[in-house]
Amino acid sequence: MKFGVFGTGMVGLAISNRLEELGHEVMIGTRDPSKSAEKLKSKKKAVKVGTFAQAAAFGEVLVNATHGAASIEVLKMAGETNLDGKALVDIANPLDFSKGMPPSLFVSNTDSLGEQIQRAFPGLKVVKTLNTVTAPLMVNPRQLAEGDHQLFMCGNDVVAKETVCGILKSFGWLNIIDLGDISNARATEAILPLWVRLYGKLGTAMFNFKIMQ
Amino acid sequence: MKFGVFGTGMVGLAISNRLEELGHEVMIGTRDPSKSAEKLKSKKKAVKVGTFAQAAAFGEVLVNATHGAASIEVLKMAGETNLDGKALVDIANPLDFSKGMPPSLFVSNTDSLGEQIQRAFPGLKVVKTLNTVTAPLMVNPRQLAEGDHQLFMCGNDVVAKETVCGILKSFGWLNIIDLGDISNARATEAILPLWVRLYGKLGTAMFNFKIMQ
Repeated sequence: MKFGVFGTGMVGLAISNRLEELGHEVMIGTRDPSKSAEKLKSKKKAVKVGTFAQAAAFGEVLVNATHGAASIEVLKMAGETNLDGKALVDIANPLDFSKGMPPSLFVSNTDSLGEQIQRAFPGLKVVKTLNTVTAPLMVNPRQLAEGDHQLFMCGNDVVAKETVCGILKSFGWLNIIDLGDISNARATEAILPLWVRLYGKLGTAMFNFKIMQ
Repeated sequence: MKFGVFGTGMVGLAISNRLEELGHEVMIGTRDPSKSAEKLKSKKKAVKVGTFAQAAAFGEVLVNATHGAASIEVLKMAGETNLDGKALVDIANPLDFSKGMPPSLFVSNTDSLGEQIQRAFPGLKVVKTLNTVTAPLMVNPRQLAEGDHQLFMCGNDVVAKETVCGILKSFGWLNIIDLGDISNARATEAILPLWVRLYGKLGTAMFNFKIMQ
């Protein structure tokens, strides 16, 4: 499958590398492809690099691995016609570092970044997931407790969720909870304040939640 | 030990019964003691019932098991002089049902109910805990996965947290994570939107989170 991945940070690279490892074709979208190509080359990865619009046009499935505060702008640069009808795996979190640490959220409670993206691009099929775990766990969940922990997913489009679920399973995810429509992003983005504090408390980002029942 | 418990709902009764079972003396504080005494009598429980002020004066340790929206008002009725210097186990959540289901929070993100209570009553030693699990689990955590799941706690006063931690352990809690000062209530109250959705999804309130690492 062909993927367009927005963002060249830790998350974007982890997702891109894992997708290529699994035999997919990936183009990373970035603000400045020549600069990013240099950076990615130095990591000896053979990924394609393009503009956000090129990556969006290339991908059959898209991945939002940008900072939450930049996500809407990036998707605008990607261009609505390049996005229309495609599934977007939205990993971004609406973290607001402007008020110091630990970060707060710039949208929360009665709205979410996932919903903002879905409203701004009605033709996109936004699937919010992976935003509650650290990048290495996103793409290789079985390195923690043999995969015995949960991932949350939500979105309005059932077929898009099935597609994304298949990708997540290929990453190694065993327990994926589909919470329902995209408004559930309010709940999963709201975990971040706890996640950040646990990260500080536990001294590691290699953790996740398991629901005991 | 003597406890003053505010609230005659499921949480207040579960806590009161468990404390009495463990040999403590409990007075439940309520808006209308005569009405509540009748209700509690019908449940064949031998608990003392008084006004919020009487329960506050009676307790060496206090428990806020009221609805979040009523908490500050209840504590005002309890009277600052009856509260001063005492530990308050704050179980209330700032749930807002006015916008429909699932509920949102009436304070969140950059503030919390725990902090609001601490600011309103500086002489109280607010310890936020137990607000992330259902009442039966609060007082008997080992009925789920033999206690192999986590409880969060936070508050500004170290001695008050030690006292509360001892009570929680006597309830059966094995894994209590002290997140730090009361501002961490922002993070633990923010779990509620996810909790409510999981409750709907799983069809049971008898669940809790275990942190896998």
